[in-house]
Amino acid sequence: MKEKEIIEFLKKRFKKKEAILGIGDDCAVIGYKKDYYIILTTDSLFENVHFELEKFTWYQIGKKAIAVNLSDICAMGGVPKFSLISLGLPKADLEIIKNLTNSIKQMCRKYKFEVVGGNLIRSEKTFIDVFMIGIVEKKYLKTRTGAKPKDLIYVTGTFGCSQIKKQFNLNPPVFEIRRLIKKYKITSMIDISDGLSSDLIKLVESSKVGFKLYLDKIPVSEDAKRISKDEFESIEHALNDGEDYEILFTAPKEEKIPGKIGKIKITKIGEITRERKYIGVYKGNMIEIKNQGFSHF
Amino acid sequence: MKEKEIIEFLKKRFKKKEAILGIGDDCAVIGYKKDYYIILTTDSLFENVHFELEKFTWYQIGKKAIAVNLSDICAMGGVPKFSLISLGLPKADLEIIKNLTNSIKQMCRKYKFEVVGGNLIRSEKTFIDVFMIGIVEKKYLKTRTGAKPKDLIYVTGTFGCSQIKKQFNLNPPVFEIRRLIKKYKITSMIDISDGLSSDLIKLVESSKVGFKLYLDKIPVSEDAKRISKDEFESIEHALNDGEDYEILFTAPKEEKIPGKIGKIKITKIGEITRERKYIGVYKGNMIEIKNQGFSHF
Repeated sequence: MKEKEIIEFLKKRFKKKEAILGIGDDCAVIGYKKDYYIILTTDSLFENVHFELEKFTWYQIGKKAIAVNLSDICAMGGVPKFSLISLGLPKADLEIIKNLTNSIKQMCRKYKFEVVGGNLIRSEKTFIDVFMIGIVEKKYLKTRTGAKPKDLIYVTGTFGCSQIKKQFNLNPPVFEIRRLIKKYKITSMIDISDGLSSDLIKLVESSKVGFKLYLDKIPVSEDAKRISKDEFESIEHALNDGEDYEILFTAPKEEKIPGKIGKIKITKIGEITRERKYIGVYKGNMIEIKNQGFSHF
Repeated sequence: MKEKEIIEFLKKRFKKKEAILGIGDDCAVIGYKKDYYIILTTDSLFENVHFELEKFTWYQIGKKAIAVNLSDICAMGGVPKFSLISLGLPKADLEIIKNLTNSIKQMCRKYKFEVVGGNLIRSEKTFIDVFMIGIVEKKYLKTRTGAKPKDLIYVTGTFGCSQIKKQFNLNPPVFEIRRLIKKYKITSMIDISDGLSSDLIKLVESSKVGFKLYLDKIPVSEDAKRISKDEFESIEHALNDGEDYEILFTAPKEEKIPGKIGKIKITKIGEITRERKYIGVYKGNMIEIKNQGFSHF
């Protein structure tokens, strides 16, 4: 039983009714005011799955727990507004709670949202489950559906080996993406959490298209370059490692997407194809790209 | 470090800004349409803390996870609309997912809400964390604040030893409470999850009042009567066991609160006092009621 099959089962079991978008995108979407939607997401970090207590400080755990949810809000084109946090700890210790909430409080200030509730339980293993509520103007809502043949594929930031350093200090480009979608026609968007290859495949499956990636254009992180014996190995890290929490989007080729928004680098890495194949091009060779990112089961 | 001190710390750290109500009631409250609020809650069940896999079926775990959240929505006077579910399982098994979602799906139908998203991870211990979004008309919002001296105290259902049988089949009286608040002036409300004594104390602390309970009027469950050697012991179970998921509310004494709404029994169990003391009256004796319900730390 793969994660994907379970999600498909749940999608069928819980078909949307009143909701605008149910299970299957980065956020669920529900009606709000005349020109706005509410967007909803949840993402959890569990000890020994998403973090080890020996490697992470509580400050870093708090920051990561918030950032992975902000990344989902960002990928829908929205801004965060409110959050609820479920926390499970083996023992209650004010120092732990202080350190954990120090980073959460900083993220509240930086990203302009409020923590309005939550739940605290004793649990054998530590976990933190964040629920985030955002809003987005109806006209700016971005989803995984909407990529069209000949659209170009872009990503923010760099990829690969994010578990070495980057995962401790994630800062999703919420405000930069807002500037982008207000200025340019963006046809689809997804956040890269499980891996560039597997999340891109999710996007093109939703949009019922294929892709051709220029593998040598993929922005590879310094960490991935450093630990790889050659360029191709570093590209494999960038495609498959996951934990990057960058944004991938598509735009018609006539859109003049800039190379940077604010401090965020934007890189064109490929194009959408009508044929539903997943192709990587490297030094003239065509390679089939498989879904090799992180899957929970 | 007690749970209560941690909650106080978090309340101070995350002061509400745009929210109508932040940390500290059964739900957070945020603005919505002209006459409505959105109410938000989260509650999680963790293996060996809230359920044992040997005692519970997956169907029962799903039902309890939803019910404890519906209870919070109910206690604010609202109705549920949308839910997101975070699930952690050591292994993915379609039978588990089917059984778990069978009860969740039934609760969706019965209580008229949709599951619109969630998150699935591999975790050493099983957990299910539910986020529930409800709505309530501004005029019907009930909180823990608002109980006035001389108000009478009422509860739904029965109390005590709920961990024996009742916890496997919780059905929060959402629609009955809606009928009640539309017809009568209800001044405050809370759901009884940690224990009648400790949750009543939370309510009177929020309302800055005290109470006098007629201990022999407390509706004691059949299970509590059965295992107790005398009436007083059964009352102690009713006061302190927790896991009852009933609703406690206060109303001015001139309100003609009925003994039943639909199939739900309503019992008058005491009165609110100006003096901030917590008194139980039993056979002419006055007893100080202490906070002895369930606390996580």
